Amino acid sequence: MSRIFSTIAIIGKYANPDVAATITALVEFLASRPVRVTIDVGTANANNLKGLETLTRKEIGEQCDLVITLGGDGTMLNAARSLAQYNVALVGINMGRLGFLTDIRLDRYQEKIGEILDGKYTEEERLLLQTSVLRYGEEISRNMALNDVVVHKWEEARMLEINTYIDGGFVNHQRSDGVIISTPTGSTAYALSGGGPILHPTMHCVVMVPICPHTLTQRPLVVSGDSVIDITISEEGHGSAQVTCDGQITLSVTAGDRIRIERLKRGITLIHPLDYDYYEILRAKLRWG
Amino acid sequence: MSRIFSTIAIIGKYANPDVAATITALVEFLASRPVRVTIDVGTANANNLKGLETLTRKEIGEQCDLVITLGGDGTMLNAARSLAQYNVALVGINMGRLGFLTDIRLDRYQEKIGEILDGKYTEEERLLLQTSVLRYGEEISRNMALNDVVVHKWEEARMLEINTYIDGGFVNHQRSDGVIISTPTGSTAYALSGGGPILHPTMHCVVMVPICPHTLTQRPLVVSGDSVIDITISEEGHGSAQVTCDGQITLSVTAGDRIRIERLKRGITLIHPLDYDYYEILRAKLRWG
Amino acid sequence: MSRIFSTIAIIGKYANPDVAATITALVEFLASRPVRVTIDVGTANANNLKGLETLTRKEIGEQCDLVITLGGDGTMLNAARSLAQYNVALVGINMGRLGFLTDIRLDRYQEKIGEILDGKYTEEERLLLQTSVLRYGEEISRNMALNDVVVHKWEEARMLEINTYIDGGFVNHQRSDGVIISTPTGSTAYALSGGGPILHPTMHCVVMVPICPHTLTQRPLVVSGDSVIDITISEEGHGSAQVTCDGQITLSVTAGDRIRIERLKRGITLIHPLDYDYYEILRAKLRWG
Amino acid sequence: MSRIFSTIAIIGKYANPDVAATITALVEFLASRPVRVTIDVGTANANNLKGLETLTRKEIGEQCDLVITLGGDGTMLNAARSLAQYNVALVGINMGRLGFLTDIRLDRYQEKIGEILDGKYTEEERLLLQTSVLRYGEEISRNMALNDVVVHKWEEARMLEINTYIDGGFVNHQRSDGVIISTPTGSTAYALSGGGPILHPTMHCVVMVPICPHTLTQRPLVVSGDSVIDITISEEGHGSAQVTCDGQITLSVTAGDRIRIERLKRGITLIHPLDYDYYEILRAKLRWG
Repeated sequence: MSRIFSTIAIIGKYANPDVAATITALVEFLASRPVRVTIDVGTANANNLKGLETLTRKEIGEQCDLVITLGGDGTMLNAARSLAQYNVALVGINMGRLGFLTDIRLDRYQEKIGEILDGKYTEEERLLLQTSVLRYGEEISRNMALNDVVVHKWEEARMLEINTYIDGGFVNHQRSDGVIISTPTGSTAYALSGGGPILHPTMHCVVMVPICPHTLTQRPLVVSGDSVIDITISEEGHGSAQVTCDGQITLSVTAGDRIRIERLKRGITLIHPLDYDYYEILRAKLRWG
Repeated sequence: MSRIFSTIAIIGKYANPDVAATITALVEFLASRPVRVTIDVGTANANNLKGLETLTRKEIGEQCDLVITLGGDGTMLNAARSLAQYNVALVGINMGRLGFLTDIRLDRYQEKIGEILDGKYTEEERLLLQTSVLRYGEEISRNMALNDVVVHKWEEARMLEINTYIDGGFVNHQRSDGVIISTPTGSTAYALSGGGPILHPTMHCVVMVPICPHTLTQRPLVVSGDSVIDITISEEGHGSAQVTCDGQITLSVTAGDRIRIERLKRGITLIHPLDYDYYEILRAKLRWG
Repeated sequence: MSRIFSTIAIIGKYANPDVAATITALVEFLASRPVRVTIDVGTANANNLKGLETLTRKEIGEQCDLVITLGGDGTMLNAARSLAQYNVALVGINMGRLGFLTDIRLDRYQEKIGEILDGKYTEEERLLLQTSVLRYGEEISRNMALNDVVVHKWEEARMLEINTYIDGGFVNHQRSDGVIISTPTGSTAYALSGGGPILHPTMHCVVMVPICPHTLTQRPLVVSGDSVIDITISEEGHGSAQVTCDGQITLSVTAGDRIRIERLKRGITLIHPLDYDYYEILRAKLRWG
Repeated sequence: MSRIFSTIAIIGKYANPDVAATITALVEFLASRPVRVTIDVGTANANNLKGLETLTRKEIGEQCDLVITLGGDGTMLNAARSLAQYNVALVGINMGRLGFLTDIRLDRYQEKIGEILDGKYTEEERLLLQTSVLRYGEEISRNMALNDVVVHKWEEARMLEINTYIDGGFVNHQRSDGVIISTPTGSTAYALSGGGPILHPTMHCVVMVPICPHTLTQRPLVVSGDSVIDITISEEGHGSAQVTCDGQITLSVTAGDRIRIERLKRGITLIHPLDYDYYEILRAKLRWG
């Protein structure tokens, strides 16, 4: 039932001295396979890699069926957002500590990537969010997130005042430092620090986690992955706020703006080795041992 | 698209002096409608109600299409468990404070029940859990829960030691006072006190909330409603434990036992007036105002 | 054993239309007493109050033995910081909802202030914090707080990286959104939203509450009120941060800076009516009823 | 300024096969010192140790100036309670993992105990609690705790209903699974699992931590170490409850009983090596690294 991947792109961490050598070794390893191997142009430039076929993200999306990311979860988050609208699967090799999204260890990648290219793997669909900022009804900015969209106060000591609506219905008025809207994938990231639950990554849901809410009974709320969430910044708060996607992209918002968060129509596909075990990763990362 | 209900049973709180009068009034109100009205035999006996047609729970399940509960959420929990295997819808009139499950106010029931009998209502499917205790592989007890199944230490000051498995895969070893396995319906009850999230009642999921876990990173975990959860009581803990369903039914367990929790194949159907608003109830009950 | 107050200053909220009338009434009420009554010059100007003796904060500190604040807890926090170095007691009349610091109701102030002027009152010493920012060993700014000193990220989506030292000893390295250092007085304010405990106001201690810490086991830590707390902003975090006192005063800090927080040598004195009950206020404010 | 210890008792874990050999080695090590060495009679019996001078706990309290405990924190808790009324210092060697109370590693005890006997050590006073159960005004049982006194439901699925008073003043009515009254020493034990803060062990205070409170705003409350805390079990709860001291001693209580908790007049003295660092232990135990 597995696809056999034939065109591979490598996306590596940008600012890491070990990436170039690892990519070179990975390219060499892949040379023995009947696959076309390409390099993300940004990765090649940032790591001064020459003599390899490079592609833009758009070209990767259009031409490749597998992307191997090299780095940490941040590299995977970036890759996933840039390729969300294409039909390409992703697999992550972690260059340091085990990641939630990069579950292949650097010292075992030949074995694991080898198995994946032999068609021995599992695949998993992960929900992504898109967020847009509306001012006087007009969309002024838009972005995507695989982990979380965070609406938080910015340059302001006072609490934000926000109203939340789900599918058009009023949920609550909240005074807080902000709110995290997290996918299951992001539930073990910032949302967990904010007091949110762990959501199994295959769940079709999102969780809204208030950050330091003034009202102590305002607790994390899990809703359907199909929910359309609207957050408005109250005029009374008269402070500025910001929307951050995956901790990497920021959009400015101001009192009166409406922030709309909903899932992207299509998720991204993560590829895992056959022995992938989500709970094993949880136990390791959260030191349950 | 709505069904028109024709055979109604009334289940009331057992130990409440106002129930008899309220049931009498409700029966009188329903007399003007082209419906057959019956009373739960336990309710009739406990409240000394005479001259009304009584049915056992089994007969209610087989003959009725609507049950009206009179009391609080506890009365509804009891009714739901007893009727889980039948095709009967439930609606709750609260006799005291607003309940999460009993959303019709006593002073407005004529209007609201009237609308429901006119076919003006919404219906909602709620997930129920069944739990069984296995000793040496044999099922020694079984019950159901609409809110939650709680595995907790019993007659024992020391922590429980339990292992959890989901769909056969090991999740973790835990030292704690116990664990709450809650449906979305139960997420605003005991699970919330234990630090769990609020799950929208239409979600198809369950949350496992550790009670005072020794390991602080063991946090509430939300998994699919289709999960089969197995909990084993470690031999080292050598203490006794107990399983409680909805805080109403208890099953004894001991070291070595396996507790299996999974959803019932069919949920129960709750009926609400058209103006039912889950978030309004949350705001009122959690005092978000 | 009580002092009899003879020189009173009134400090009112600045931007509230009802303050002028209330001050006028309060001055009139006090006219029947053998006391000198003065008005904070800022309050008089902001509320367009004329014909009353006005004093600067410095003059209030030097000449008055009692300050009556009119407004909410914010007005009291402002007054307390400005008068921390003087020997003057404070009492708060709340103009809206009951406050933790402003426990005299507007509609009962004649009775309660009357009793206080008759010598029937209790007094309570509250700990204040002073914080200074040190850059290359030089103090570049300093301020005070009655509630809390908050070190938090600023114009930055990424977590802060900070090191904490108490009395010169290393406590921990932390990745978080920041840390709240709260007095007992402030423990029911922002620190509570961050997950901190309630500290009885007479306790001689401070609590450090990490805000959304990456490491879940980093929990609120209560230490002696005599502790000297040093927080350094890690160079790796390379983000800017800010220090906020009572949510009202902000000091800029950058990577490499050291923030020192310790108690002021003298606390401030709060005056309460004889029937003051801290737990009654807790029950009311936290809706324990 | 340090005392030089001259009469030492050894108290070891009862049910551990390695204890006998370790005690024998420890006795041999101490033989080169000008000290009298004795063994707790219970320890000797439980571990089948012969040929050594044994003393009862009472005799240890009356004759010894230093007790060395061998085992984990549980052994120290037991020793501390039994010797609370005597003037004897305690030091702990941990036989397994580092403990909060047993900070000397087994493989380094010769060096560390040697230094202590040379007078090179620090000492620290730790607060203990005493608790008594009053029925119709009569004390029916009494015990002590170094870590915590826990009032919790027992043989009962429903929540407890309790009223709390501090120094005679009403604090609140609570529905919960119980309440933990913890010393600073116990704040890193069960109280931490219940959501309590970490209290520096030198603080003169206790923290009350509600266990799964029905009212979410009922949060940990830190009060003076001199507080007299009374907890009454509400008649309505009609369930039985239990009081547990240090997780080791249990006292039965029933509806209507009053449980009084206050500090013992004298604390116990813990001895530490000069390089003892509380925060280092916190970092290790809570894996802050």
